Amino acid sequence: MQINSARLLQWLDELAEIGSIPGGGVCRLAFSKEDKAGRDYIERLMRQLGMQVQIDAVGNILGIRKGRHKDGPLVLTGSHTDTVGTGGRFDGSLGVLAGLEVIAQLNDAGVETEKPIGVISFVNEEGVRFMPDMMGSLYLKGELTLAEIRGVKGIDGTTIGENLDEQAYAGTEDFRNLEIAQFIELHIEQGPWLERENIEIGVVERVQGIRWLEFTFTGMANHAGATPMSMRHDAGYAAGVLAHAVRGMANEMGEGQRATVGSITLSPNLINVIAERAVVTVDLRNPITDKLIEAEQRVLAEVDRIAKAEGLQVSVRALARVAPEVFDETCVTALEKAAQHLGYSHQRMISGAAHDAQILAGRFPAAMIFVPSKDGISHNIKEYTKPAHIEAGANVLLHAVLDLASATTLSC
Amino acid sequence: MQINSARLLQWLDELAEIGSIPGGGVCRLAFSKEDKAGRDYIERLMRQLGMQVQIDAVGNILGIRKGRHKDGPLVLTGSHTDTVGTGGRFDGSLGVLAGLEVIAQLNDAGVETEKPIGVISFVNEEGVRFMPDMMGSLYLKGELTLAEIRGVKGIDGTTIGENLDEQAYAGTEDFRNLEIAQFIELHIEQGPWLERENIEIGVVERVQGIRWLEFTFTGMANHAGATPMSMRHDAGYAAGVLAHAVRGMANEMGEGQRATVGSITLSPNLINVIAERAVVTVDLRNPITDKLIEAEQRVLAEVDRIAKAEGLQVSVRALARVAPEVFDETCVTALEKAAQHLGYSHQRMISGAAHDAQILAGRFPAAMIFVPSKDGISHNIKEYTKPAHIEAGANVLLHAVLDLASATTLSC
Repeated sequence: MQINSARLLQWLDELAEIGSIPGGGVCRLAFSKEDKAGRDYIERLMRQLGMQVQIDAVGNILGIRKGRHKDGPLVLTGSHTDTVGTGGRFDGSLGVLAGLEVIAQLNDAGVETEKPIGVISFVNEEGVRFMPDMMGSLYLKGELTLAEIRGVKGIDGTTIGENLDEQAYAGTEDFRNLEIAQFIELHIEQGPWLERENIEIGVVERVQGIRWLEFTFTGMANHAGATPMSMRHDAGYAAGVLAHAVRGMANEMGEGQRATVGSITLSPNLINVIAERAVVTVDLRNPITDKLIEAEQRVLAEVDRIAKAEGLQVSVRALARVAPEVFDETCVTALEKAAQHLGYSHQRMISGAAHDAQILAGRFPAAMIFVPSKDGISHNIKEYTKPAHIEAGANVLLHAVLDLASATTLSC
Repeated sequence: MQINSARLLQWLDELAEIGSIPGGGVCRLAFSKEDKAGRDYIERLMRQLGMQVQIDAVGNILGIRKGRHKDGPLVLTGSHTDTVGTGGRFDGSLGVLAGLEVIAQLNDAGVETEKPIGVISFVNEEGVRFMPDMMGSLYLKGELTLAEIRGVKGIDGTTIGENLDEQAYAGTEDFRNLEIAQFIELHIEQGPWLERENIEIGVVERVQGIRWLEFTFTGMANHAGATPMSMRHDAGYAAGVLAHAVRGMANEMGEGQRATVGSITLSPNLINVIAERAVVTVDLRNPITDKLIEAEQRVLAEVDRIAKAEGLQVSVRALARVAPEVFDETCVTALEKAAQHLGYSHQRMISGAAHDAQILAGRFPAAMIFVPSKDGISHNIKEYTKPAHIEAGANVLLHAVLDLASATTLSC
């Protein structure tokens, strides 16, 4: 049994039209009207496939295909369809649409499963317009309340509550007590490892933990020509030193540690005025909890040193903290078995990116399938995964879901 | 003979109301409607004082008080009334309004001078919305053509030509062949030196030269978690290293060298995406030409090194190049004589900031008067100069102008 690759690729093309940007990219920022249009597209597909569709109060959308055990725990798959501002067409979308292709294939082949199968699209996985990321899965897991989420203010000053109401985005269902037997997420790697090693399927057994920190340095705006170097309180200089130091720290800590200053915002940001204020973000990732804590402490110490030396005030906000996650061994083994059965080259690996699967993994058995990303590029309009790899990933998902949903016990 | 300090302070208050921002600052960006309203205020004052008012094709405004030699060269004073985005109320405005107070005082006292006296307000001295700075004086001197100026595109994407037309800002006169006997500009120091040395009047004998450079680094947007540190082409990191290095270079080169990274703009500027593009400005100043060239060469070499090491494309734009200027010795002596006569403490000094006077100095005898800036702060809403110092500066201007305009020869 194989998925219909042409149908899946067509769905990917159709979804990529929604919020498309020049150069082949996509912009469907969470809770925007493009994001809503993307979700509406998913909802239409689910209804066409005869699924029972439910939407919860934050906009997570769930389609269910009934099993013989009508009320039992379901085998869940899916991902998200929101994107970063200059996103690609595969990140998130592939996991949702491949899940629907699994359903379509089961329908076409007239297969009945023991357990019901669910396909979910989580809201705001990217977390760039409204923080934190992976918000939909955090809500489902019970780590964020509805009130907390509705109150989150975005980079454009509006709240999620306002956006939910304006787009008529929210539904009335509640998935927080949903019985989930297993969750399997198919995703592009977003890194260069599979392509470099020439492997078709990554079986993800572990996910990096994340710390997102935002520092605000406040100094003194002053004339760039008339102010002696020794009398400056230059927030822009502090931002520069921090960006420099963060890279040095990651290099010192070795390959497992990743550290990025992706956003620097100076005020007044003028050529001839010493910056009064700098808002600088630091993204830290490590698959080992102690190392991640060490990285955070080193950054905090460096920020303190920089601020003291330059005579600046500094404040810090922790925007996201996701613990490293080890996936369920029996789920991981089921994925390996499916890849083996289908004859795809495969290897266990660590995810460098954060995913909804790692949120759910704290409460339910879960694992992930990765397929190669060309040049490791994602969060970029150049993001690309070959059709053959898309097909391979969806086939592994199909066979793993078949395996899990046909079993009569809860184990993988 | 003394200026009327109360009247001058009232004018400063009235002008500061135009484009006022919270906290006592002013925003009159060049060619904006606030800037036009500020210029209209100056025009009204000139007419109330009985001056003949002329406006040229770029919006420079000149008021003339006739002398006995009606067509001879005039003694010119003035400055500018545009501001940076978060400017103070004295930078530029003081020089224009003190010039008008000199005229008012001569009117009140019924003094007739040999030479005519002009008060000028130059457009776009700050150069933050449209570059380069000191545009009005560069046009008067003949270094920029009208077509060049009208075609300049600003940070909001509009051209100066569009703004001139929309605000009905331009006049029909032409000052480019104006005969100027001497130009004297009164300005706040915008640095901490006079206050720290407890000196009332700075007699400016030299002005730092300026290089403004803008670098655009282009790398590869990519996922902050999934991209190994060794595979990054991170434009944000390059911006940080440059800001760090520029300070180190200035410190190495010693007190005469100033270097500032005031503006850093990253794209996409997101917490979890490696920056694809960074636009970074560098402001270099030195009173000695060779040192300034050395600083620029060191920055260019550093940028090249950074780009190569990180695998980035880089382009550079030279936004402004102003040569260091040595003021006219007889003008400087006239200012010293006036300060001496009035009993103010005074000392010769170097200007760290750029001024219209240094542009005119290449063609006409010129010099400047500085008064103290509290804590050296300017380009900031906290900019402040004591009333006593404003009075002292305006009195020196009055007596210097009296001296220069009553003389029957062209020398200071």
